[in-house]
Amino acid sequence: MTTPASTRPYNFSAGPAAIPEEVLRLAAADMLDWHGSGMSVMEMSHRGKEFISIYERAEADLRELLAVPPHFRILFMQGGGLAENAIVPLNLSGGTSADFVVTGSWSQKSLKEARKYCTVHVAASTEADGYTTLPDPAGWQLADNAAYVHICTNETIHGVEFQILPDLKALGSKAPLVIDFSSHVASRAVDWSRVGLAFGGAQKNLGPAGVTLVVVREDLLGHALPACPSAFDYKTVADSHSMYNTPPTWAIYVAGLTFQWLKKQGGIAAMEQRNIAKAQLLYDFIDRSQFYANRVAPSCRSRMNVPFFLRDESRNEAFLAGAKDRGLLQLKGHKSVGGMRASIYNAMPIAGVQALVNYMQEFERTQS
Amino acid sequence: MTTPASTRPYNFSAGPAAIPEEVLRLAAADMLDWHGSGMSVMEMSHRGKEFISIYERAEADLRELLAVPPHFRILFMQGGGLAENAIVPLNLSGGTSADFVVTGSWSQKSLKEARKYCTVHVAASTEADGYTTLPDPAGWQLADNAAYVHICTNETIHGVEFQILPDLKALGSKAPLVIDFSSHVASRAVDWSRVGLAFGGAQKNLGPAGVTLVVVREDLLGHALPACPSAFDYKTVADSHSMYNTPPTWAIYVAGLTFQWLKKQGGIAAMEQRNIAKAQLLYDFIDRSQFYANRVAPSCRSRMNVPFFLRDESRNEAFLAGAKDRGLLQLKGHKSVGGMRASIYNAMPIAGVQALVNYMQEFERTQS
Repeated sequence: MTTPASTRPYNFSAGPAAIPEEVLRLAAADMLDWHGSGMSVMEMSHRGKEFISIYERAEADLRELLAVPPHFRILFMQGGGLAENAIVPLNLSGGTSADFVVTGSWSQKSLKEARKYCTVHVAASTEADGYTTLPDPAGWQLADNAAYVHICTNETIHGVEFQILPDLKALGSKAPLVIDFSSHVASRAVDWSRVGLAFGGAQKNLGPAGVTLVVVREDLLGHALPACPSAFDYKTVADSHSMYNTPPTWAIYVAGLTFQWLKKQGGIAAMEQRNIAKAQLLYDFIDRSQFYANRVAPSCRSRMNVPFFLRDESRNEAFLAGAKDRGLLQLKGHKSVGGMRASIYNAMPIAGVQALVNYMQEFERTQS
Repeated sequence: MTTPASTRPYNFSAGPAAIPEEVLRLAAADMLDWHGSGMSVMEMSHRGKEFISIYERAEADLRELLAVPPHFRILFMQGGGLAENAIVPLNLSGGTSADFVVTGSWSQKSLKEARKYCTVHVAASTEADGYTTLPDPAGWQLADNAAYVHICTNETIHGVEFQILPDLKALGSKAPLVIDFSSHVASRAVDWSRVGLAFGGAQKNLGPAGVTLVVVREDLLGHALPACPSAFDYKTVADSHSMYNTPPTWAIYVAGLTFQWLKKQGGIAAMEQRNIAKAQLLYDFIDRSQFYANRVAPSCRSRMNVPFFLRDESRNEAFLAGAKDRGLLQLKGHKSVGGMRASIYNAMPIAGVQALVNYMQEFERTQS
């Protein structure tokens, strides 16, 4: 394995997260004059032909990358996943009820927020085992008439990831599946035949914070509760091509550059292979080690977010300080879980994971 | 008057709008490595010390610039003015009623959206004169028990601007005044003793699209309706220092650079003097001309947004094409008003206004 030369540190932040260097260089180069327009992208009217061209290319590239079928609409919204926790039930619940599969902090937050708008029902939960597994869909207690079923397909904090989307029809439910795919979007293929709506903040795998991706099946548009703000009514957003309110133009532009970069890397299938290799490298090392540990059941482990612990937690600060000295940044775990977390999104090259593993080995040697 | 050399065109977009060149250069220079952190600002965890330092400086600089009193909180939100049209009544109306003074497209939109959450009452309207004047506060029909009174202090589309904020107490109302100051924030001082809440999208005078400024008196926090999404509950946002959901970090950073630039320009008082001079230069020229016209009553004219018309509208396209050739961009008027519009926000130097006037003279000569 060769390690390409890089002068930039490796950034393991869970989000906002690393952005491909090539994307940052393009954004910097075009800052004062985008393609001869005389304007920064930040200075363009969102209704002018320059920004419309940026927007349309971003949408088309994303549709191609994620193989989004024609009967799904792609929306670029604001407020991130936490806002979508309200916006989804405002649009889809009809004030009735929704099923939730609780597998970590994010699905738990989604459930809590939905209570404002509808009756919530826990179809399954792994709280009892500290969110280190995923519940077998065959055992989910799905309600007969839920307006939708919500799952978080990659739990950023707890590091569990659905490897296969549940087939709700096969489980006897007619409800559309809503997936929060914030922290693994574009890292693997999506089986849209099993999905009604997918949402995700961009700041993990798509670009900068400030834009939220929503991919929604057309038949789910137009059912918002009266209390839904117009700017967050999916139908209003879809009808106006995400320009009912001024869109976050810069964030969409940088996401669009990231989509172009992803295509140059070979698209999602190629990224998925790299992500499998990166995750395997890190998990294999941790599993072989007596010094580090990951607590998630192997079949449920996230390819994107790898929480791990030093068996002697008194060495955490020394580990982080040494990592920073070696250009390995933002490895501190989420405060609710503790320990360390390496987020290894698309923009993290395998050389960065190798550098982390090398450091972990080195640190272990110096401590024992 | 000297015209500084510049190779960039002058951008008269109503928003997203021109950003000071110095701000763009700083943003480009720090793109791959902000202050030796090894990260782009877009790549930083919003909870890390680097971004916290950016955030805290931006907030402190803005508080100083706008002389925001200590009993007001500064929030950075998402969704722009159109989202605030729902978020304000969700937080302040208590489901009762609110007064609206309708002076153009934006206050009209605010009124319409508030109907979802409370009874709305038109205290005054200038619709009958095509939104070319402002109603004398002495004649406003204020309700006895409105939860708040909403005005748009600068109507971006119609080009009318309140030169003095109404004193609701003197008018016999106990309601807090809500001002939509999106398109003239930071162009002039604000008399906070007359304001309960102010909101504005950043993309006119503060920075890029994607961040919304809210300045709210503390006693107005904590009264949100149950249907208010947590991410848009002012108290939740205030308690979490605008980090309940991941904030639009890049947009806050660029707004912060703009605040630093404003301070170097001499602050709001100095900007206000320049804005007066810029507006006077353009309005005086239009008023002396037989070829161009502005329809707004002189005492109500906006210093920021100057809609104007060619008396012979068949020449509009030729005017716009010639302007673009001379590096005078985005002058086309809003489709609901027609004609032209020159938005001359803080980032527009007087040299740009002079260049526009010069071109308008030249165009008139060549056409007659």
